[in-house]
Amino acid sequence: MEQKTCQDTRTVSERIIFDKDLNDKQTLFGGKTLSLLDENAGLASFKLVHAKIATAGYDHVNFWRPITTDKYIKLESFVTGVSGRQIEVFTKVISHDLKTDISEIAFTSFCTLMVLRSTSEIEIPEIVAETDEEKYLCSGFANRLSERKKIFSHKDEFISHLTI
Amino acid sequence: MEQKTCQDTRTVSERIIFDKDLNDKQTLFGGKTLSLLDENAGLASFKLVHAKIATAGYDHVNFWRPITTDKYIKLESFVTGVSGRQIEVFTKVISHDLKTDISEIAFTSFCTLMVLRSTSEIEIPEIVAETDEEKYLCSGFANRLSERKKIFSHKDEFISHLTI
Amino acid sequence: MEQKTCQDTRTVSERIIFDKDLNDKQTLFGGKTLSLLDENAGLASFKLVHAKIATAGYDHVNFWRPITTDKYIKLESFVTGVSGRQIEVFTKVISHDLKTDISEIAFTSFCTLMVLRSTSEIEIPEIVAETDEEKYLCSGFANRLSERKKIFSHKDEFISHLTI
Amino acid sequence: MEQKTCQDTRTVSERIIFDKDLNDKQTLFGGKTLSLLDENAGLASFKLVHAKIATAGYDHVNFWRPITTDKYIKLESFVTGVSGRQIEVFTKVISHDLKTDISEIAFTSFCTLMVLRSTSEIEIPEIVAETDEEKYLCSGFANRLSERKKIFSHKDEFISHLTI
Amino acid sequence: MEQKTCQDTRTVSERIIFDKDLNDKQTLFGGKTLSLLDENAGLASFKLVHAKIATAGYDHVNFWRPITTDKYIKLESFVTGVSGRQIEVFTKVISHDLKTDISEIAFTSFCTLMVLRSTSEIEIPEIVAETDEEKYLCSGFANRLSERKKIFSHKDEFISHLTI
Amino acid sequence: MEQKTCQDTRTVSERIIFDKDLNDKQTLFGGKTLSLLDENAGLASFKLVHAKIATAGYDHVNFWRPITTDKYIKLESFVTGVSGRQIEVFTKVISHDLKTDISEIAFTSFCTLMVLRSTSEIEIPEIVAETDEEKYLCSGFANRLSERKKIFSHKDEFISHLTI
Repeated sequence: MEQKTCQDTRTVSERIIFDKDLNDKQTLFGGKTLSLLDENAGLASFKLVHAKIATAGYDHVNFWRPITTDKYIKLESFVTGVSGRQIEVFTKVISHDLKTDISEIAFTSFCTLMVLRSTSEIEIPEIVAETDEEKYLCSGFANRLSERKKIFSHKDEFISHLTI
Repeated sequence: MEQKTCQDTRTVSERIIFDKDLNDKQTLFGGKTLSLLDENAGLASFKLVHAKIATAGYDHVNFWRPITTDKYIKLESFVTGVSGRQIEVFTKVISHDLKTDISEIAFTSFCTLMVLRSTSEIEIPEIVAETDEEKYLCSGFANRLSERKKIFSHKDEFISHLTI
Repeated sequence: MEQKTCQDTRTVSERIIFDKDLNDKQTLFGGKTLSLLDENAGLASFKLVHAKIATAGYDHVNFWRPITTDKYIKLESFVTGVSGRQIEVFTKVISHDLKTDISEIAFTSFCTLMVLRSTSEIEIPEIVAETDEEKYLCSGFANRLSERKKIFSHKDEFISHLTI
Repeated sequence: MEQKTCQDTRTVSERIIFDKDLNDKQTLFGGKTLSLLDENAGLASFKLVHAKIATAGYDHVNFWRPITTDKYIKLESFVTGVSGRQIEVFTKVISHDLKTDISEIAFTSFCTLMVLRSTSEIEIPEIVAETDEEKYLCSGFANRLSERKKIFSHKDEFISHLTI
Repeated sequence: MEQKTCQDTRTVSERIIFDKDLNDKQTLFGGKTLSLLDENAGLASFKLVHAKIATAGYDHVNFWRPITTDKYIKLESFVTGVSGRQIEVFTKVISHDLKTDISEIAFTSFCTLMVLRSTSEIEIPEIVAETDEEKYLCSGFANRLSERKKIFSHKDEFISHLTI
Repeated sequence: MEQKTCQDTRTVSERIIFDKDLNDKQTLFGGKTLSLLDENAGLASFKLVHAKIATAGYDHVNFWRPITTDKYIKLESFVTGVSGRQIEVFTKVISHDLKTDISEIAFTSFCTLMVLRSTSEIEIPEIVAETDEEKYLCSGFANRLSERKKIFSHKDEFISHLTI
């Protein structure tokens, strides 16, 4: 079976924060972060496998620190697990204060993407962790996957309680 | 203590899907959904309490069905729990097919927002569920809150494994 | 003949005002309002009839009150008249002040949309008013239609005075 | 009293139509046109008088011809009347077909803008028409103004019928 | 051979500067200027010849004066040279201060566009300068073309030094 | 004198190409590339020195290869020269074809940025090249600087030929 390393899928985007990206608390608008996140995580999954892929869900989405215009940000995403047609991508946003030169983890999340079925069979490579960070994050995949399966198994019951 | 109903915080936005909002699978770009979501959920929290409020996190973010241009969508958010300075907002996206007149739950999520500390004391109202849907969603708040506390208690350990 | 109520076509969108949406008077940029308006009015017409529909014109477009960032807005559109292939949609924007909890009518307009001719015959439903507001607005349709016919009858003369 | 010619206030913007500006009928999205319109008309009023000015309303907004990507457009705005603190700006959109080299009037509108009251007295110049087109449009100002006054005189009655 | 004058290709766009277009120095964001530039220069080339045309490069791109929100801008582009399938377009941005009524050249650039090869033969008209400004700019075309040829002749050597 | 390496200023942004970013030739709109470029180059200069910095100009801006939606792009910028208050930033855009796994240099440019004068003295670090690519690019700085000085020395004469 084909293998790819987390590093093979690593996707980086550094961005300046503009005034127009701020909300009325003068911190980066949550929706802007989420939009950047989805683009960056999506690209990491495309590096694993060239196929039609759709975002299936997010969990563990945490805004740890506010992001302001004195800072620039660096989004980093890489694949941390594969199971069947599911791909899990971890994303962290590091904010860097231009005045103090201090970097912090501002945001982390796990995204689940789904390789869409197609007529031609697509083989999704196995993912191989190399660094301590990658090993730590990949080692939690099985637990997160089983949490998601539990939630998914209640999907129909959950949706049946919602009005349309 | 002041009380508000879920209905008092209900926020609705109906939207047409434009071609420019689509990704290369001809379904609504995930990042666009997340950006609409954050705006709608934020407004629901402002209806509960007039204060500076920041998005703290998301969980149970699920894209149940693809959203295409044959459909229009309706985002509905309302507050489903309050604990200390934390406000939980549930959002569902209902897609409506213009041809077949069929509506479906396309997306759901829970967002946690945080009332920022300020010099003046702010009292956050209690939330009161009235309909079956509201009661069901609010009844799960305690469980979701304890899940989040568990994750948050591992925050420092989790972040210590990440490189900057 | 098929009938639909104004309520069947009612389209609602609640929105936060962001700093980037403001002009240099710190009120909502007129062009932004008009762009939101056209999307909301268009969706109301799609709820009446599933067909290709194009905006033909606007009249009675009035900005009654300035909209600022202390407020959120609620756009409400519904069909108020049908004649041949023409559909009239009324839109009001209600602004709600988050501090004082006071709501005001900030903007109103009437939009005329045109169902495009197609090979298959499309039947456009009749519109039925139920509430006092709907009855009042629909009762003015005949007058507004005759005003528009008068303007349209001068179209060629009007355009002949314009240089290209 | 100071005088300015229509020509002094003439504001021109030529634009390419991009695919992302199109709606699902492959013609320019109405909301996009309205947004370009408001910017161009606003600039024409700034050329008349340097003051804080807000859009008060639109009428006679007509989409005469569909605008497609084979065409480029030219927006032209100029002031066609002044009364008290009100400024009327006429805008036409000429579409030019790149294949056939044919130009057409695609859109026209009249916009009313209001000079905001300020502590310092602002004198608004009189407007002087020179060309046939300018004279024709300015000669209709008195009629349009009286139509608007009639509508404005029913403002309170009109708004009293609307629910908030 | 067909001829067109610089004037035939002249493309004008007047724009208000909005707060959201500013960077943190309160002057127009360079990237916004460049984006407006590319649209305006592209349209000038479409007026010369109706064909598929792509931007090939820019040189002599100079921001001579900062552009702030007290000003409006006027972009003016026209063709200043044609050689084979290459079209050179000059663009100047004039900023006009609304308070002092003073206009300045804020920005100039030369853009090279390339007519894409197609099955049908396309004849590109010769360009004819009429005014002093046009004659001056067109007279420098031969020199600028030879500079570009020199740079282009080192293309492979230049790119060979870059890592992928 | 303080020194920083090119690597210290290296700024990376990987991006997916969306349909809405394309022009009618189905390649990335030039203006979009230029806008991404200016943001990325600006961030590289901020990493050299924390000060108010404005874009002064661009040269050697070349679109070597068309960028299409089958590809993702990686922008890479770093400082390649400092002289007085001027900072030169080189940017390359590498496009990566997702099907064939082939990477190409699609675009390169040199940007000149200017550290704005301020009351407090700001010391701009010297730049040190380490890799072959960095040494090659930095070695050409003196030549490019003298070209720019020559153009700048004709600035007044050049601008005197332009009409306002």
